[in-house]
Amino acid sequence: MPVPSAVAAVRTAVRRLLGSAEAAPYAGAPVVVACSGGADSLALAAATTHVTRRPVHGVVVDHRIQDGSAEVAARAADRLTRLGCADVRVVPVDVEGPGGTEAAARRARYAALAEQRPDGALVLLGHTLDDQAETVLLGLGRGSGARSIAGMRSLDPPWGRPLLGISRDTTVRACGELGLDPWQDPHNEDARFTRVRLRTEALPLLEEILQGGVSTALARTAEQLREDGDALDAIARDVRRSAESGETLDARVLAGSPAAVRRRVLREWLLERGVTRLSDAHLRAADALVGHWRGQGGHALPGNFVLRRSRGTLLVESGGHPAAEWSNSG
Amino acid sequence: MPVPSAVAAVRTAVRRLLGSAEAAPYAGAPVVVACSGGADSLALAAATTHVTRRPVHGVVVDHRIQDGSAEVAARAADRLTRLGCADVRVVPVDVEGPGGTEAAARRARYAALAEQRPDGALVLLGHTLDDQAETVLLGLGRGSGARSIAGMRSLDPPWGRPLLGISRDTTVRACGELGLDPWQDPHNEDARFTRVRLRTEALPLLEEILQGGVSTALARTAEQLREDGDALDAIARDVRRSAESGETLDARVLAGSPAAVRRRVLREWLLERGVTRLSDAHLRAADALVGHWRGQGGHALPGNFVLRRSRGTLLVESGGHPAAEWSNSG
Repeated sequence: MPVPSAVAAVRTAVRRLLGSAEAAPYAGAPVVVACSGGADSLALAAATTHVTRRPVHGVVVDHRIQDGSAEVAARAADRLTRLGCADVRVVPVDVEGPGGTEAAARRARYAALAEQRPDGALVLLGHTLDDQAETVLLGLGRGSGARSIAGMRSLDPPWGRPLLGISRDTTVRACGELGLDPWQDPHNEDARFTRVRLRTEALPLLEEILQGGVSTALARTAEQLREDGDALDAIARDVRRSAESGETLDARVLAGSPAAVRRRVLREWLLERGVTRLSDAHLRAADALVGHWRGQGGHALPGNFVLRRSRGTLLVESGGHPAAEWSNSG
Repeated sequence: MPVPSAVAAVRTAVRRLLGSAEAAPYAGAPVVVACSGGADSLALAAATTHVTRRPVHGVVVDHRIQDGSAEVAARAADRLTRLGCADVRVVPVDVEGPGGTEAAARRARYAALAEQRPDGALVLLGHTLDDQAETVLLGLGRGSGARSIAGMRSLDPPWGRPLLGISRDTTVRACGELGLDPWQDPHNEDARFTRVRLRTEALPLLEEILQGGVSTALARTAEQLREDGDALDAIARDVRRSAESGETLDARVLAGSPAAVRRRVLREWLLERGVTRLSDAHLRAADALVGHWRGQGGHALPGNFVLRRSRGTLLVESGGHPAAEWSNSG
């Protein structure tokens, strides 16, 4: 009998991630699957125990912010055991701290998963293409550039997200094909959560207006932006290596690069000198000392720092004094 | 009496574009302003005649797809004359051809403006920050990567868009402050148009869910993506120069660059060899010959082309035969 299509799609995605060259360093350890009992993570757990011979650990985080959450967690753990997980744990957490319930729950969940992770193990998460589309839209609203809309990475050790190319529909169908009855998280319908409103209102409206394919398009765009960003980061590291000398940066070397590369070099270099809270406007002003040099004075930066250009090199001064000893190498 | 704030903002934006280093090559010619009579282009025309001493030509394109369009155009032309334009023309066009009314009107408009443009002149267009946000959302729905969501350029000769950082609210206020009564295009409210639905439904919903600032965030993200894209294009040109020899591309040189740069090099090089309709998937497959070389055979590309690697170099073959004479330089 052929394997039903949704199950096959999920298995292929998990197999691809676990078999990728980038995941090879984790091949000697168990695989951890984070599972809420919902369709995405249940389909993920089923596929993982099927495609790997390595021990699969199941971790169920009980956020304890909904009535009956202990029962939901126990049921999910029971399913993981029946799916063949070698080690199954329910981990209760406290959801607290700043930034709203969504952000606090996320922090508590990741911390618990990191703690349960055996050394050298990958932790697989059930984020789907739809989650990725929501993440991109959330990032768009923040507007802090390519970085904010590049979404989640499929491999961001110790986290692995094999299902970023798989829609939520597919995980639901996979559960159906396997006779699994996933938990329906009432929070997934709760319009107090920004992400829920993006999912249930904004994305369907965009799908209607733009005639379909929006989630797929957002996920694909995110992937390309991530690769573009990685490329520029790598190029900026090379440029910085050529331009840096002691505490200074050679503006003439930097000037040979495109503006987007120069700003990346300046950002990393300034952060390491203790200049934090750098906005895009700060970086553009700093870069004017490189790209539009006409003998101007220093640029004030957050935290009482000043960036100056002298004899072709850039130096950061703190509170009116050089942040480090001035080298005359420029 | 101080200049009212919206008028001042529009003037500053126009002054900045006309005074930029990039616009300097156009400083010897008149400035053309494209004007529909709506708030954006009327505020633009008023600001342009105020900030420059160069002759300002006004062009009103009559699309002839709405009743009374000739009267609307005549009224806009009359306003341009009163604002001090040196040369004002109404240009009737035929909106026809494939892709729907919006696309056809756009094509006809740009063609007419290009025809009316004096040699060496910039043509200023009234696109605002809101238009930019709509363009980014439209591009997101297409999902063809960073290029599709990078929006419009403020200077894309012969086109200049000084108002991409100015909201539509501001142009409306500027017209009010100047006592100008702009035309309200009924098409701006017509829900048959994708762009109108993005403006009147999707963006307001996103603004509500994400608590404001979405249009600004989209426009800012677009600007950064454009600069990132420009940087990668420039880097790819350099890499290609080092890797290209006759009809071949040195895969070992290419392999030293990040994937996003390699795919850009391959894209341009393949397009010049006549391989068109290249999807992202094609480019990834082609790049496997560079980034994941393990002695595999050639990759089929659209149009009966095959990309092969031999002795460390890439070559395109057509219909089973080399597209050009094989060089043994590799």
